[in-house]
Amino acid sequence: MSNKIVVALGGNALGKNPKEQLELVKETAKPIVDLIQEGNNVIVAHGNGPQVGMINLAMPEMPFPECGAMSQGYIGYHLQNAIREEFSNRNMDIPVCTVITQVIVDKDDEAFNNPTKPIGAFYTEKEAKKLEEEKGYDMKEDAGRGYRRVVPSPMPTDIAEKETVKTLVDNGHVVITVGGGGIPVIEDNKSLIGVPAVIDKDFASEKIAEILDADYLIILTAVEKVAINFGMENEELLDTLNVDEAYKYIDEGHFAPGSMLPKVKAAIKFAESKQGRKSLITSLEKASDGIQGKTGTLIIK
Amino acid sequence: MSNKIVVALGGNALGKNPKEQLELVKETAKPIVDLIQEGNNVIVAHGNGPQVGMINLAMPEMPFPECGAMSQGYIGYHLQNAIREEFSNRNMDIPVCTVITQVIVDKDDEAFNNPTKPIGAFYTEKEAKKLEEEKGYDMKEDAGRGYRRVVPSPMPTDIAEKETVKTLVDNGHVVITVGGGGIPVIEDNKSLIGVPAVIDKDFASEKIAEILDADYLIILTAVEKVAINFGMENEELLDTLNVDEAYKYIDEGHFAPGSMLPKVKAAIKFAESKQGRKSLITSLEKASDGIQGKTGTLIIK
Repeated sequence: MSNKIVVALGGNALGKNPKEQLELVKETAKPIVDLIQEGNNVIVAHGNGPQVGMINLAMPEMPFPECGAMSQGYIGYHLQNAIREEFSNRNMDIPVCTVITQVIVDKDDEAFNNPTKPIGAFYTEKEAKKLEEEKGYDMKEDAGRGYRRVVPSPMPTDIAEKETVKTLVDNGHVVITVGGGGIPVIEDNKSLIGVPAVIDKDFASEKIAEILDADYLIILTAVEKVAINFGMENEELLDTLNVDEAYKYIDEGHFAPGSMLPKVKAAIKFAESKQGRKSLITSLEKASDGIQGKTGTLIIK
Repeated sequence: MSNKIVVALGGNALGKNPKEQLELVKETAKPIVDLIQEGNNVIVAHGNGPQVGMINLAMPEMPFPECGAMSQGYIGYHLQNAIREEFSNRNMDIPVCTVITQVIVDKDDEAFNNPTKPIGAFYTEKEAKKLEEEKGYDMKEDAGRGYRRVVPSPMPTDIAEKETVKTLVDNGHVVITVGGGGIPVIEDNKSLIGVPAVIDKDFASEKIAEILDADYLIILTAVEKVAINFGMENEELLDTLNVDEAYKYIDEGHFAPGSMLPKVKAAIKFAESKQGRKSLITSLEKASDGIQGKTGTLIIK
C-alpha cells in the first residue's frame, strides 16, 4: 500500500557535530528507506537546534535566518548522501535532494511580542544589556546559566518553495525540506524578509504535509509511544489517540511544553485538517512498524 | 526565441558579506529575469570564494565540503529571494529554488597531486608545519603574506543531483545549482565522499549545461568582452571566437590563469561538446544584450 508520508526527524537523528552527524545519518536513512522500499512516497523534514546554534556561535555577525539557510545546506548534504547510499545498498535508484526552504510566518503573529526560544551564546547581565541596546536583541536569563538571546517561535502560514517540493514529489523524488522548521520569512509587499525566529519543525512539517496532501505525518522522537502520566506509576502508553482525547490530555497537562506538547499539537492539526489524514508519533527505529500499525501512537480525528 | 541557458555568475554578483550580498543580489536578479522574461529557460550557477572563505575561517573544525554546502544554502537563500522579488515586480509567477548540489570528481584526477587553491586563514611557517603534521593539510606560502592551506581543483565528471535539476528545469522552475562549483565528492563503492577541493565554477556550470542539453553557457564576469593583448596598446576586444582561434590565443598566453583562462576553457569545452552549442562571455549587465547578439564575446565551434 502506497502512502504519501511526511517524516519529521527528531534531534536524535542528527547528532551534535559534523563527525557524529555523518555517522548518525546512516542509521537515520535506514527506516526512511524502509518506508520507501515498502512503496511509500516520503518527504523528509528535520530539526536544526544544535547545528544552527553552532553556526550562530561561530558567526555572531551573520543574521539568524542566514544561519538557518546554512544549516539546511549542511544537514541536507549529509542526509541526502546517507539516503542515497542506503538506496544504493538495496539496489534502488531514486533521486534524493535538498531544497532550501523558506517558511512564511505572519508578521502580526503574537509570538513576535513574546520571544521564547533561546539561541546562541551565554552572556553576563552587563553584556546582555549592551546587546539589547546596540543590536535590539531580546535577552533573557536562562536557568541560572547566564543571559541568552531569545527569538520568537511563530506559526508557519505557508511554504515559499511549495511548488518546487510538489513538482519533485510528484515526479518521485525524495525531498528534504523545511529543515530546522524552515528559514523564517515574513511577506513585505513583494519581498520575503528573513526574520530572527525559530519555527517549530513539527508545525512546519505539518504545514508541508497539508500542502502536499499527504496521508501521514510521522513525527519521530526518542520514544516509541506517547504516554499519559509520563514517568509516574500510572504511566500509560497510548496506541491510538483521537483528537478529542488529545485535547483533554493537553488540558490536563500530560505533555511537556517544548517536548511532547508541540508534537501532539502538530499531530492533532494534521489529523483535523482533512478526513482520512493520520499522524503517527513513534521512534525512528519503529517508523516502518508504526506505519504498519504494529506500534507507535496513531493520532486520528 | 526560447533558449535553455546556464548562467554562471561571477564574484561581482554576490559581494563579500551578508549585508552587501543582500543588496547586490537584487541587481544580479535583474539581468537574470530579463533573460527569463524574453522567454528563455534559465539555470543559475555561482561562485562562493569569499563566502566559503568566511565560513571556513569562522569554523576551522568544519570539514571543507560541509562549508561548501553551507555556502550554497546561504547564497541560494539570498539569490532565490532576489529573483522571486524581481519576478513579483514584473508580475511574473515562476517558481525559483536552490538545490544543494554535489559535483563528482575523479579520485585519480591529477589535481589531487598538485593542490593549488588557497583557502582560509594565513599562518606563520611554524603554525603551517604543525597543521601539516597534525591535520595532513597541504600548506603553501602565499605571496609573502604567510602560509595558507591549499586544496586541489579537480575537473567535474558528473552532477549527483542532475535528475533533480533536470526535473525542475523541465517543469519550468528556475534552479540555482552547482553553487561554488558544487560540493566536491568522489565515488567510493556505493558512497559519495566529500573531499577538500574547489571545483572551478565555470567548469561545473559547463558540466550541468552539457547534462541539461543547454543551448547557451553564459559566463558573466567584470568585463563586457574577452580581450587579446589585454591592457596593452594593441588590446583587441573579441566579438566572436571560434575554438581554433581560442586555442591559439591560449597557447600565446593571452588569458590570465585563475581569471579569464578557465572561463575561455569552459566556454570552449561547451562549444565543442555538441553541434550548435554556444558560449558567451560578457558582463552581468550585458547578459540580455549579449544573448541578442549585440555585445559580449561569443565562443563557437
